[in-house]
Amino acid sequence: MMTDLFAQINTRIRFNEVDSMGIVWHGSYIKYFEDAREEFGRKFELGYLKIFSEGFYAPLVNIDFSFKSPLKYGDIARIEIKYNDNEAAKIEFSYKIYNSETDILIATGASTQVFLDKDFKLMLYPPDFFIQWKNKYLNESK
Amino acid sequence: MMTDLFAQINTRIRFNEVDSMGIVWHGSYIKYFEDAREEFGRKFELGYLKIFSEGFYAPLVNIDFSFKSPLKYGDIARIEIKYNDNEAAKIEFSYKIYNSETDILIATGASTQVFLDKDFKLMLYPPDFFIQWKNKYLNESK
Amino acid sequence: MMTDLFAQINTRIRFNEVDSMGIVWHGSYIKYFEDAREEFGRKFELGYLKIFSEGFYAPLVNIDFSFKSPLKYGDIARIEIKYNDNEAAKIEFSYKIYNSETDILIATGASTQVFLDKDFKLMLYPPDFFIQWKNKYLNESK
Amino acid sequence: MMTDLFAQINTRIRFNEVDSMGIVWHGSYIKYFEDAREEFGRKFELGYLKIFSEGFYAPLVNIDFSFKSPLKYGDIARIEIKYNDNEAAKIEFSYKIYNSETDILIATGASTQVFLDKDFKLMLYPPDFFIQWKNKYLNESK
Repeated sequence: MMTDLFAQINTRIRFNEVDSMGIVWHGSYIKYFEDAREEFGRKFELGYLKIFSEGFYAPLVNIDFSFKSPLKYGDIARIEIKYNDNEAAKIEFSYKIYNSETDILIATGASTQVFLDKDFKLMLYPPDFFIQWKNKYLNESK
Repeated sequence: MMTDLFAQINTRIRFNEVDSMGIVWHGSYIKYFEDAREEFGRKFELGYLKIFSEGFYAPLVNIDFSFKSPLKYGDIARIEIKYNDNEAAKIEFSYKIYNSETDILIATGASTQVFLDKDFKLMLYPPDFFIQWKNKYLNESK
Repeated sequence: MMTDLFAQINTRIRFNEVDSMGIVWHGSYIKYFEDAREEFGRKFELGYLKIFSEGFYAPLVNIDFSFKSPLKYGDIARIEIKYNDNEAAKIEFSYKIYNSETDILIATGASTQVFLDKDFKLMLYPPDFFIQWKNKYLNESK
Repeated sequence: MMTDLFAQINTRIRFNEVDSMGIVWHGSYIKYFEDAREEFGRKFELGYLKIFSEGFYAPLVNIDFSFKSPLKYGDIARIEIKYNDNEAAKIEFSYKIYNSETDILIATGASTQVFLDKDFKLMLYPPDFFIQWKNKYLNESK
């Protein structure tokens, strides 16, 4: 049985992340997703710096997100991130953001990253280091 | 025959919008979409301030975008926005971003907004002012 | 003997806070100062929400900061904030940012806030709630 | 008689630059200053890319700014930038921001940049290209 690769992080809503209606500006969620992705990277050795050190860059090529309920200044968001395995040379994550005090679902989302080499050339097959990463973490989690 | 409601705006890529790889950070595109939405709002009288003055707030509830090609610091982006009419109490736009000098497609996207009244209650039917807006602009463009 | 009113907070440098030279973009420091100010507000009951609830708004009217040494993506910054008491209807803070691992001084700064009432009128004398705040916290810290 | 080296740029206040009080968040001014600096750089050949191409990086080491009056969403700011010559290996600018419709003074500020070479070593004397730049532009403007 396979367990999901999963991480989560709490972040307190900053004054500068809120719009003139007093609720979180939608663009701020992009940062919360990135915070979660970085937390995942630290936990499972797949951060930007690790990927750079392997000779690759993993830019976002697709993001989507849906908003269910607003967050306000001073709220604490819990951002959950889950790795979705696939055969392609891609890193796919899905996200859920909750109000950490009420457990109300705030937003959901997904992101896809591809691999570029140091000449910014798209990798059509998963790089070796990523295959090894899968062997380590997906086996561990079975 | 109906013509699309369409607007576009050019924006020069700022130093602070570029990441450590020297290309535009994906979160910056959210701002370019908003720039285009505001330009559309000025051109067709559907800006945030207009919507506020009618007693409503129109938050984003869904965004997605895909990246095709990078932008660099100093490039000029042309952001195109198109209104997609529908029966629901929603405002839907699609977006295309081009490198204004090369005409290379940089990114595509879509957004959906709903209407909340002043008590933050979701409108299930299009507000009157929005129906009048459609009558004015969608008829004009037929 | 008076002890300083002092707070501190650690923040991990985000990918989106770094510029194309790989170091923290200077504008990001404004956010770190705000993070520290909010931590101070939580610790000593002087946050934006507290000030709002008393009927006032306390916008920044002056900020300055100096950079001594760069921070990089992945570094952890320790932001220290100190309250500087004065007779005027102003809130004055000074800031020091350190690399939390090396203790190298990264930046220093200062900020001044004034009080506006709900009609955005400048308060020439300290509001009552602020005098009471001083009585509580500056006496406590003597 | 020497004329000032001077540039200006207009920018429309974006929804995401405004805080929950409906006025421009103080951190947004950092971006307006950068917009003005880049406009100056385009006009007088002293932009980041020019400086990079000469083998240098010119990070900000000091910024200060004072706020006189608020800007709101939808306002258009006029940002003026003036070069202040000095003997040191530094680039110094001063800034004034006006509401472009009312000509009310919104903010003032100043910034100082130093030169680092490609190994991030501080230049104690002005680089040759900068001396040539001064010869060209400060003579022209006498």
